[in-house]
Amino acid sequence: MLARRAEAGVKTAGGVALVGAGPGDPGLLTVRGRRLIRRADVVVYDRLVDARLLELVSPHARVVFVGKERGHHTEPQEAINALLVTEARRGHRVVRLKGGDPFVLGRGGEEAAALRAAGVCFEVVPGVSSAVAAPAYAGIPVTYRGVASSFAVVTGHECSGKGKRVDWAALATAVDTIVVLMGAGRLQAIARELISHGRAADTPTAVVRSATTREQETVITTLGGIAAGDARLPAPVVMVIGEVVALRPTLRWFDRKKSAEAQAPRYARRTWSSASKSDARPSSTTRPVSIT
Amino acid sequence: MLARRAEAGVKTAGGVALVGAGPGDPGLLTVRGRRLIRRADVVVYDRLVDARLLELVSPHARVVFVGKERGHHTEPQEAINALLVTEARRGHRVVRLKGGDPFVLGRGGEEAAALRAAGVCFEVVPGVSSAVAAPAYAGIPVTYRGVASSFAVVTGHECSGKGKRVDWAALATAVDTIVVLMGAGRLQAIARELISHGRAADTPTAVVRSATTREQETVITTLGGIAAGDARLPAPVVMVIGEVVALRPTLRWFDRKKSAEAQAPRYARRTWSSASKSDARPSSTTRPVSIT
Repeated sequence: MLARRAEAGVKTAGGVALVGAGPGDPGLLTVRGRRLIRRADVVVYDRLVDARLLELVSPHARVVFVGKERGHHTEPQEAINALLVTEARRGHRVVRLKGGDPFVLGRGGEEAAALRAAGVCFEVVPGVSSAVAAPAYAGIPVTYRGVASSFAVVTGHECSGKGKRVDWAALATAVDTIVVLMGAGRLQAIARELISHGRAADTPTAVVRSATTREQETVITTLGGIAAGDARLPAPVVMVIGEVVALRPTLRWFDRKKSAEAQAPRYARRTWSSASKSDARPSSTTRPVSIT
Repeated sequence: MLARRAEAGVKTAGGVALVGAGPGDPGLLTVRGRRLIRRADVVVYDRLVDARLLELVSPHARVVFVGKERGHHTEPQEAINALLVTEARRGHRVVRLKGGDPFVLGRGGEEAAALRAAGVCFEVVPGVSSAVAAPAYAGIPVTYRGVASSFAVVTGHECSGKGKRVDWAALATAVDTIVVLMGAGRLQAIARELISHGRAADTPTAVVRSATTREQETVITTLGGIAAGDARLPAPVVMVIGEVVALRPTLRWFDRKKSAEAQAPRYARRTWSSASKSDARPSSTTRPVSIT
């Protein structure tokens, strides 16, 4: 590998790229992210990163899982920061692969600050955030002319201690569309809080699980329905609150595409939009799809 | 082209893919978006789409510019919708290429609804939104543990008539970070409104122009500074308001990378993270970079 780099006249100074892996569908990785993963000497990845992306990694590269299980951080953040610094200082090209976008509720900022403090070069490769892509795959545009010209993205995860708390009272009626990430297990409490601060209980609300993958499930209800205990789906879920949710019956393109593909005879499944040979293919463990 | 498709056993039914082109840097296009552009029979694109992405288009494809100049819509939305429907009904694979993400303030939802109403198959390929990527390239994470756990994205463009108005009063203090897209020419009025509704005049504020490209410029000031007339940059600009802006001196990786590349002797410019042969290359019209 060093020989290859020297041959190409490439500098061998190490560095870290904080790469957004996108929301799940491997096709939503960026071109630059894919290139960096393929060239990396070390890839450090999270729980929410699709396994198919790891197939891009060179067989000579080291792959390190530091993925945080819910309520159980496999590696504390400080250990992850230290790993990135150490590997970069060894002259390695490190990719820190994070689900979605590195700077949307992913602690990527902290990792960047730690690298800077250690004098390690880094760059950021933004990714497609599930805050927008999960609704889009459920047929819900977060904005729509005449319906929504603003949206907010908030964490549903209550951090003990250091986390900055979301001001649900102020947020309730401030924007047209509210997107809650990392809220599994807390959706009911959040919905109650938003209603108590003036968001209408009949506001259309969607919960999308495993968005952009073949396992994607969508539950449509109202904010009051969530408050009453609807849609208790396990993580990872994205909750979308707002009138745009009512557009789903018209715009639910992904469900239709999946149904069409499931019904087509096998030889005809390769439509103009399906994966090409060179791309990652669906995992062999695809489960039956359940769609509401 | 038809022969190629028949050979591959591919269906020739037309359809439209609404593809997010990303914020500017061609490397931030998604893998799937790139594949669809290469295979398209027709590409319909906007003003904010980087010209280098059009180099991906097949020489046999038709390329149609419908890009809206500010205050002067080259094509009314109805004409764009009709074009997409007509081309798809001819059996063409149409890519509708939109700056950023198709569903973030881009009227992609309307186009999807028009396609659905006409019975035309469509799919959505989310893109990296400049709402997150513009701040990221300026060294500003929209969220940061202990500093910001929520952000809102709003349009700064006052639509006459049909647009839903942003509730600046409610928004002013509802989220930690406010990102204003399409606000060129209105930043001063927006800042005044936010201050009058309780957002502190000393809130750190950034305006990023031509984000993620070599022409990127960043002005750092406060919300009061914007209200007083700082940062009158021409479109396209992204304004970021919130304490996260104060992280820029630590995290401004893109400026450092550009400076390092500009200072390096020519033979050494190919760092591990620079473009590979197969990727689009910087335009030959690169202007001198001005960074604040």
